[in-house]
This record gives sequence, C-alpha cells and structure tokens, in this order.
Amino acid sequence: MALIVQKFGGTSVADADRIREVADHVRRCRQRDDQIVLVVSAMGKETDELLRLAAEVSPTMPGREVDMLITAGERKATALVCMALHDIGVPADSFTGSQAGFLTDTNHRNAKILDINPQRVRTAVDEGRVPVVAGSQGVSTGRDVTFLGRGGSDTTAVALAKALGADLCELYTDVSGVFTTDPRVVMSARKMSSISFDELLEMTATGCPKPAMRSVEVAGRYGVPLHIRSAFTWEPGTIVTQEDPTMEQAIVSAITPDDSEAKVTVSGVPDEPGIAARLFRALADAGVNVDMIVQNTSADGVTDISFTVPNEQVEVATAASQALGADIGALGVITDASIGRVSVIGAGMKSNPGVAATMFETLADAGINIEMISTSPIRISCVIAEDDLERAVVLLHSAYELSNSTH
Amino acid sequence: MALIVQKFGGTSVADADRIREVADHVRRCRQRDDQIVLVVSAMGKETDELLRLAAEVSPTMPGREVDMLITAGERKATALVCMALHDIGVPADSFTGSQAGFLTDTNHRNAKILDINPQRVRTAVDEGRVPVVAGSQGVSTGRDVTFLGRGGSDTTAVALAKALGADLCELYTDVSGVFTTDPRVVMSARKMSSISFDELLEMTATGCPKPAMRSVEVAGRYGVPLHIRSAFTWEPGTIVTQEDPTMEQAIVSAITPDDSEAKVTVSGVPDEPGIAARLFRALADAGVNVDMIVQNTSADGVTDISFTVPNEQVEVATAASQALGADIGALGVITDASIGRVSVIGAGMKSNPGVAATMFETLADAGINIEMISTSPIRISCVIAEDDLERAVVLLHSAYELSNSTH
Repeated sequence: MALIVQKFGGTSVADADRIREVADHVRRCRQRDDQIVLVVSAMGKETDELLRLAAEVSPTMPGREVDMLITAGERKATALVCMALHDIGVPADSFTGSQAGFLTDTNHRNAKILDINPQRVRTAVDEGRVPVVAGSQGVSTGRDVTFLGRGGSDTTAVALAKALGADLCELYTDVSGVFTTDPRVVMSARKMSSISFDELLEMTATGCPKPAMRSVEVAGRYGVPLHIRSAFTWEPGTIVTQEDPTMEQAIVSAITPDDSEAKVTVSGVPDEPGIAARLFRALADAGVNVDMIVQNTSADGVTDISFTVPNEQVEVATAASQALGADIGALGVITDASIGRVSVIGAGMKSNPGVAATMFETLADAGINIEMISTSPIRISCVIAEDDLERAVVLLHSAYELSNSTH
Repeated sequence: MALIVQKFGGTSVADADRIREVADHVRRCRQRDDQIVLVVSAMGKETDELLRLAAEVSPTMPGREVDMLITAGERKATALVCMALHDIGVPADSFTGSQAGFLTDTNHRNAKILDINPQRVRTAVDEGRVPVVAGSQGVSTGRDVTFLGRGGSDTTAVALAKALGADLCELYTDVSGVFTTDPRVVMSARKMSSISFDELLEMTATGCPKPAMRSVEVAGRYGVPLHIRSAFTWEPGTIVTQEDPTMEQAIVSAITPDDSEAKVTVSGVPDEPGIAARLFRALADAGVNVDMIVQNTSADGVTDISFTVPNEQVEVATAASQALGADIGALGVITDASIGRVSVIGAGMKSNPGVAATMFETLADAGINIEMISTSPIRISCVIAEDDLERAVVLLHSAYELSNSTH
C-alpha cells in the first residue's frame, strides 16, 4: 500500500466530464490499495478569467485582494472533484490551503510556504477518505489568504508529499511526460522514462514549461520522487528521482528552446570593482529577474555587460540600466528582444568534456552565431538569434542522437 | 459619527460598473464621517451558476462540498469590491465568513450562526479601514466552511451589526423599500417610510420577498435598526424599528400575496388525541416545511386536517401523508397546488377587531371563496384560489385605503 499525492492541473479538471474522469482514476488507484491525496488547480482558464475580472474592476489590483479572488478558483475545483468522488462511492473531503495547514509568508500573489501542518489531511487519509487540497494557496502569518503564484499547485503537491512522507508525487498534466525536446519543434522528440532532479531543474529553468520549476527544486531538495504524466492518456510518464551514481548516465538528456527572454547590453562600462554590483542591485530594486549574465573581457579599461531578462521586463530593465549607465559613464544601452536561447542538458556531461565543443561546432556548421554562452555543471546555454532557434534545436537533437538514445 | 453595516445584494455588485458604484457610495458615506462595514453577496446569478455546475458534476451534491463551492462566490465579490475601494483611495480589507469570526453549526447549505467574534473586522474599523465581509458564510464547529442559505447575506449583515454594536444596518437591494403590497399587482402600492419588525416579519413570512425573513427575525430580536433601500436609485427607503407604543399605529400596513404554496388535506382522520402529532412528526421527519395548519370541527368522530407546504415539497408531503393516513385509517389525501394566500398585516389590528370582518366581507362581495384562515395578533391570512389572488390583493389594498394612508 503506497501513499500517493496526485496533482491535477487546470486542463485535467476543465469541465464536468474531465472531473468525473479524475474521480474514476482515483477510484481505480484505491482498488489497487493505494492511499490517495489529491491537489487540484483551478478549472481550465479560470485563473486568467478572474484576473481579467479584477483588471476590469481595478487598475491597481491590490495583492491581498487579488489573492482572495483567485484562490476561489482552486476552491471551486476541490469541491467539484469531491462531489464527483462521493457519487462513485469514494469518501472525500475538500480542504482550502489554510485548512490543509499551509502557512506562508505575506508576499501576496507569490507567497512562499513557511511551514505545513497537514493534520486534517492526514486524519482524512487515516480514516480511508480522499483529501482534496486546493493548490497554490495558504494562509499567511498575518492570517490573510495567499496565492503561491502561477504553477503553484505543483509546489503544493510536492510540499504536501514531503510533509506527509508520501511514497510518490504524481503530477498529472496535459503532456505525457518530459521529452528530449519540444515535440512541436522536433518530431522525433522522445519521452524519457526517467530523469534526475538536477536535469529537470535545468530544463525547467531554460524553457521547459512543465512542471513548475519551483516544485522541481523543492522535490529535489527533499528527495520527493515525482512522476510526470498525462491525465488524458493515463499512460506512464517520466519518473524524476535523485541521480543514481551507479547508473550509467546519458551524456546529454535533453535540448530546451526558450524564446521568452530579451538581451540587454550596457556598453562601454568602466572596468572597475563594484560597477557590476551597482548595475544588478539597481535591476533587483526595479524588480527585474535577470537570468544569464555575461561580461566581456576588458579592453582599454572599458567592458560590455550583457544580460537576459523576461520579454515583459525589458522596458523596466532598459530604463534602470540607462539611469545607472548615465551615472557611471557608460556608452549606452542596447536592447535586443529577438533572441532565443538553446540549452543542452545532461547529468553525464560532468565527466564528458566534449559536450560543449559538439554544441558549438553544430551551431557553427549551420552558420548560427552565438551571442552569449553560460554553463552549469550539467547544462550549456547559448543565446542566438530567435529566427535560428528551431533550426538549432533540431540540429542539436540530432547531433546528440537523442531520438535513438536508450536512456 | 455613526457605525453603519451596509449589505449589498447580488444585483448591486453584478458587474464592474456596479461594483465601482458601490465603492463610490462608500466613499461618500465616509466623507460624511460614517464608519462603514460592508457585507456583500455573490455577483448577480453566480450562486445559481455554481449550483448548476455542481449538478452537472454530481447528482448527489454532498452538502459540505456544495458549501465549499458556493461560498467562493461571495469571496470573489468581496475581493473585487475591496479593489474598487482601494482605487478611489479608500483602504479596505476583504474577510471570509471564517475570518470575520462567524462560527456556525454543521448543518451544511443552511447553517445557523452560533457565535460571532468579529475581532478582525473591528480592528479594521478602528484603523479607519473598510472591512468587506463575505455574506452568508462561516466556519462550523467541525472547522468546515458553511453556507447560511439563500438570502443569508442579510442575516450576516444584521448579526454583524449586532455583534459590532452598529448604529444601523442598511440592506441595499434592487427595490427601493417595503411597499404596502406588490407594486406589480397594485399600481398604487405605496413605499412605506417606516414599519415595525413584527409587521415586516409577518410580511416576509407571507410572501414579501425582501429582505430575507430570517434576518428580520434576528434584527427584531436584538433591536438592530434596519434601513431597506435601493442600490440603484440610492433614495431613502424604509426604516424598520421596534414598534413605538406612543406612536399612532396604522390599523393595516400592508397586503401580501403569496402563490408559492400548495394545500394538502388528509380527510376522514379519526378524531383522537395524538393523531395530529403523528402526522406532523412524519412530515417533519420527511423534511417538509409546513406553514398554515387548519383542522375542521369533528363530525361523527372523524375530521379533516389541511395544511400548506411550499409547492416544491408537495410530492414529499403527499407521500408522507398517504403513508401515515393508511396507518391511522384516514379516508384519503387530497392535494391542491393552485391555491394562493392573501394576508392583511398591521400592528394596529391588535386593538381593532373589525379588520378581519372587513377582509372576509371584501372577499365575499367579490365572490372569492375562502378555503383556509389563519391569524396572528397582527396578521390575517386567507387561502383562496390562485386565480383569484391578484384580484383579492387589489380589492383589499383599496378596502383598507392603503394608497391614501399617511402611515
């Protein structure tokens, strides 16, 4: 008998039929003697609709009230899923984030979990009932309702699995697992049967949309095994676990494309200690999420600093950079929104130094110019022209023979 | 400076424009130095829509989950009203029923308030903020979310006004006050500037749709002054207070029509002690809300018992009566759904015995047959044919000279 936390995303509970299918799946799992805890997101596009309504009423949308509003979406979904379970003879209780014991900080619209006391959830499980927990929400230290942010239901599920000591956390979604690359770009993209937390984290950090990066981080930190799978085909998906040191690692596991960022270059920056610190402090103060950072070698005492930011933050980032650039006597600020980033990810590259060379050669042979490079022990990312992005992904997927890999 | 609890019904917050109008009204009230506490219902027809969704998912609709689902409606409305207030510079905080301190019993879909601890609401008021409380909800002694039932937002407002020691409870709605009768039936129906709790209670008990009867009961018991008024015209409405013994009472204040009930007659019942008790216990056990009860004089040791029930309960009531009728040897059960009830209400009739005679004469002169009669110290109700109902209301409104009354 295993205790399994199952999270169902918005498309998985989008209408009455889908909700009944989820309930039926839970019934089957219980027949196999598993204990099930459910976490559900708001139905379909409901969160978007609530935000649209808020924007219609209010230009300022105060955070506390936005959270009160949008958490209603998950709450509705939990109640409806419970009703569907009752109807097929499965006893079930819905719980808000607060009732499920999620204590968060007071950072509205993007609250962080501080502690979980899932006593009511555990009691329900012990009594043979199915707790259905509203995803992405909690109650703050100030006793206000909080929202954990978009994709927060994945985090709820993983954190709850950890708190309950669950055997497995299943993230049901509208894709059937984690692929070697975006199957819309590369037709031969292959679903991986397993992947390590570190690899998946690098993938989600570089444009792989599901699951939410934060949930992978939490799962990795606490060693909560994940199973990313489809609520439409119900076929086995991708298992995510700690890297097994005895296991033969694939050198490269996946290629991720990302066209969601823009590049900002501050040119002619005096090459003095503390200049970069001042720039990135100014950007942080403006709320800009800087991703990649590259500083060129100094020539004649001046240098260029380039960084990438989400497309929607490019104007704020440019303004902040120009203000500081004027202060420090930089030459200017250049913005390029038409960039793409392609990343090669694989736990095995730690012990295989040729991976980067293959990547650069593949791009060079195709006449694709590399504008920025950044690396981690298990990832290499190159910023290239957005127009070259899909071509780069196809070529790299083939260069690392991912379609034929037995990984 | 007065502390006023203002309740806004579903039509008053039906869309973004209406919500902004409510916020603007609150701003004006604060400029007059009043302290405002808001209670809001779900937007427009949202509660109906949520119930439709529940019925689509689930034929059984378990109470705990239905409450979790529909209370999301009021919650959304509070958040949106707060946003609109923020935008015009009025600090405001939304509170769920639980956050506002409403403790209820565990009777889902129709929970009763056990206690109110409105500490967070009071603190907000003391800090110069506007608390916006979700109507018709609370948290049960079992720590589950509960719904107080349709029309429960009125009860929330009245109970909160009592708990806060507010000076006044204003119930904003889509009518401009309480009328001498239904203005759709009698064109000369007149809005009353004031009425007593007892009279309004009799009116709501006999078909006057607003405010909810339960809230009038609570307001009367605790002496919370009510002002029933329009959120569309914003004109002064009807003040409801304790009856002032020094005040000259109008003999008759209002005529109410009611076509929502059906009549059930159990005929040939043995006239023995305990028979009626067994019948109404059986009906109570079947969940039937019996309203009027009339037992005819016994003839030959058998009698007829007639009672009225809401139209939607007539089948349950008939089945329960037939089962018991067979047991006790009754002759049969006759059902008549096409009845109407007309009631004459007035605090002054206590000291004016001619009121009933006028009512019976008026109906007799018009050839309208009276099937059942029931009275209270300030009300006389007659059950007549449904087809005669509107005619009876027009004639009685005129007979008691309500259009010209200076009440």
